[in-house]
Amino acid sequence: MSAGPAISVDRDLVARSIEAFARHGAHGETGVWRTVYSPAWVAAADHYAELGREFGLKVRQDAVGNVWATLPGTEPGPAVVSGSHIDSQRPGGRYDGVLGVLGALIALRTLRERFGQPRRTLEAVALCEEEASRFPGAMFWGSRAICGLIEPDEPERITGYEPETIADAMRAIGLDPAAIPFAKRTDIDVFIELHIEQGPILEHTGHPVGIVDAITGIRHYTVTLEGDSNHAGAFPMDLRRDPMAGAAEIISGVINTAHRMGRPTVTTVGRFAAEPGGPAIVPQRVTFTIDARHRVPEQRQLLYRRHEGLMREVAARRDLEISWDDPIDQEPGPCDPGIVALLQTAARERGLDAPTMPSGAVHDTLVMGRFARTGMIFVRSKDGRSHTPEEFSSTEDCALGIGLLADALYRLAY
Amino acid sequence: MSAGPAISVDRDLVARSIEAFARHGAHGETGVWRTVYSPAWVAAADHYAELGREFGLKVRQDAVGNVWATLPGTEPGPAVVSGSHIDSQRPGGRYDGVLGVLGALIALRTLRERFGQPRRTLEAVALCEEEASRFPGAMFWGSRAICGLIEPDEPERITGYEPETIADAMRAIGLDPAAIPFAKRTDIDVFIELHIEQGPILEHTGHPVGIVDAITGIRHYTVTLEGDSNHAGAFPMDLRRDPMAGAAEIISGVINTAHRMGRPTVTTVGRFAAEPGGPAIVPQRVTFTIDARHRVPEQRQLLYRRHEGLMREVAARRDLEISWDDPIDQEPGPCDPGIVALLQTAARERGLDAPTMPSGAVHDTLVMGRFARTGMIFVRSKDGRSHTPEEFSSTEDCALGIGLLADALYRLAY
Repeated sequence: MSAGPAISVDRDLVARSIEAFARHGAHGETGVWRTVYSPAWVAAADHYAELGREFGLKVRQDAVGNVWATLPGTEPGPAVVSGSHIDSQRPGGRYDGVLGVLGALIALRTLRERFGQPRRTLEAVALCEEEASRFPGAMFWGSRAICGLIEPDEPERITGYEPETIADAMRAIGLDPAAIPFAKRTDIDVFIELHIEQGPILEHTGHPVGIVDAITGIRHYTVTLEGDSNHAGAFPMDLRRDPMAGAAEIISGVINTAHRMGRPTVTTVGRFAAEPGGPAIVPQRVTFTIDARHRVPEQRQLLYRRHEGLMREVAARRDLEISWDDPIDQEPGPCDPGIVALLQTAARERGLDAPTMPSGAVHDTLVMGRFARTGMIFVRSKDGRSHTPEEFSSTEDCALGIGLLADALYRLAY
Repeated sequence: MSAGPAISVDRDLVARSIEAFARHGAHGETGVWRTVYSPAWVAAADHYAELGREFGLKVRQDAVGNVWATLPGTEPGPAVVSGSHIDSQRPGGRYDGVLGVLGALIALRTLRERFGQPRRTLEAVALCEEEASRFPGAMFWGSRAICGLIEPDEPERITGYEPETIADAMRAIGLDPAAIPFAKRTDIDVFIELHIEQGPILEHTGHPVGIVDAITGIRHYTVTLEGDSNHAGAFPMDLRRDPMAGAAEIISGVINTAHRMGRPTVTTVGRFAAEPGGPAIVPQRVTFTIDARHRVPEQRQLLYRRHEGLMREVAARRDLEISWDDPIDQEPGPCDPGIVALLQTAARERGLDAPTMPSGAVHDTLVMGRFARTGMIFVRSKDGRSHTPEEFSSTEDCALGIGLLADALYRLAY
């Protein structure tokens, strides 16, 4: 590992690239609606490939749709990779995912222009369907394909919010779901992801950039409560089996539980549907999601036990049928201590006070960490906001994050 | 008023008519999806007109779409009317509304066959959009037209769950919204509605038929709570402005308030939407309905004060923006004491133990009571269920209700 210079990147290029990318799936003034395999997503992937070529990198798209831009090293051996995702929430903002995707490309361009060919191979990658915003069961689709973690029946089994499978969506843009195993890589040594923080911690402490040492564990429940649909006027309160009343009690309870357990415990109910949904009808059935996270395995299990205990108790007491599945259940993952130390050193040597912090959001890094040494760099988010068109990070902060990424890649590859 | 015989009606005709009507907008095995002015509704209105003619009555459709079947009296003077509505919930069952519509027609047929021309004019009517199931702001559309209670700007102002105005929907089936004032009647003396109970009281007390002495007052709130959309993982619980947490607390609170105030207080939350609706995003905004009812004016106002106080308090404490409108606000309405007494006498003289009871559901009778003397007959509902395909009343109970209706009409018109 070499000591390295404090690399600075072209701020105009950073601002211009983010701006240009935001046009693919533009939603309102500042938002982006770019779900995987959609026309906007295809345009973004093509744009990424074009930028890579323009920057003098070797570009290819793999079987699942990830776009790779490579700066080959003089020596053989496994690669040092940086990247993130180009799919968005519905709608999301222009920084989530894109910062890391463009940041990796700009870092490679800067390193190539300033230092020429590296010793070790460097790669930038734009991953697909990290958000699971088109196919709820397909979270981390791109990084799972790279790690060989997509089960053979998933492409035809996973359906979207629309009645379609992810295999259908792949075929519609010319990707063959049967070829997914060819996306697997076994030659990645390091994966570093640059990403906006998506929370308010860096803003509160006044730091533009942070270094992540661990990523939270997450479980998504999809809960269904069923009672009896009855007339809102003619059916007495004391005889009702009202799933709306049960759901309200459970939602209050799980949110209070997470709040009371203190930071960094979080629990969120973001999705809710009542059927049949008439204002004058006690619902027959309500369905809602619970997203619950903690980065410490024991605390995470305690949180889930409390949530499940409450759900069972409320349903039994109110004589409601309850069921849930957990389509997403990710163990928390620490980053590689060596990579974390390397990032800390690089920051210190460029005079940057970058606190070490956990990530409450999950990222492709969590998946890549199964087989590679990983690290993450966070960039400050205005008001801690993300997954919304209002998310914002300043060009200055973004460029600083990319500079730190370039420093780290230099130390690893030159 | 004449004393009357205990009129019995043809049970096969009752069963056959209900069965035949259920085909218009049939939904699954036993359900009906027949929203106003839809093709299924037009078929039902045509069918009703055809049945009226077959039964020897004079048939016409008025400007708003109500279908009238008249048995003219020998004497001049205001009419005695019976009827209900033919629009359904989405989906509803085959008895709600239809029982009273067909019951009125069968009662008139039976009276005509057995006693010939009446002294006073008798009419059966099939009213439209009682349920507000296609146009939420158009509740009691048919009966309001008859009473001259539709404001001139309403047809072009009221929109449906689909992006269309009720005026559009009228024009699409050949009705002219500008002609609505011609539907007004000032020559109705009495309006009696036969309807399923939609609650479990008659079943619990073991009575096939009940007599209604008052109809509940009702208010519908549409509540919007707004906070900040944030990332479900990265944004700490203690910094959130989460409208889902506020909504859950309010929903629990209003349901508990109504429960604690005791029968006949009822409060229902039947409709709920969260935006943007992603499982990993704290919602920006949630919207839900509150349907709250009481038949005693003072208790009704107390209920609303408590609901509104809770909503304000929760929103303020959680730093959420709250707003609501009340598209429906109906004062409770007593039935006419004379008509109630007539129905009680008719029941007693045919040896029928029919308890007097309030209606927790609202009905066209509430509107018709503004200008006519009104009464209602309830028929027992299996498990108290309605506004669902599972609603059921036995042919025996239905025929008994129609018989009692015929008795009452005989006493009033012969």
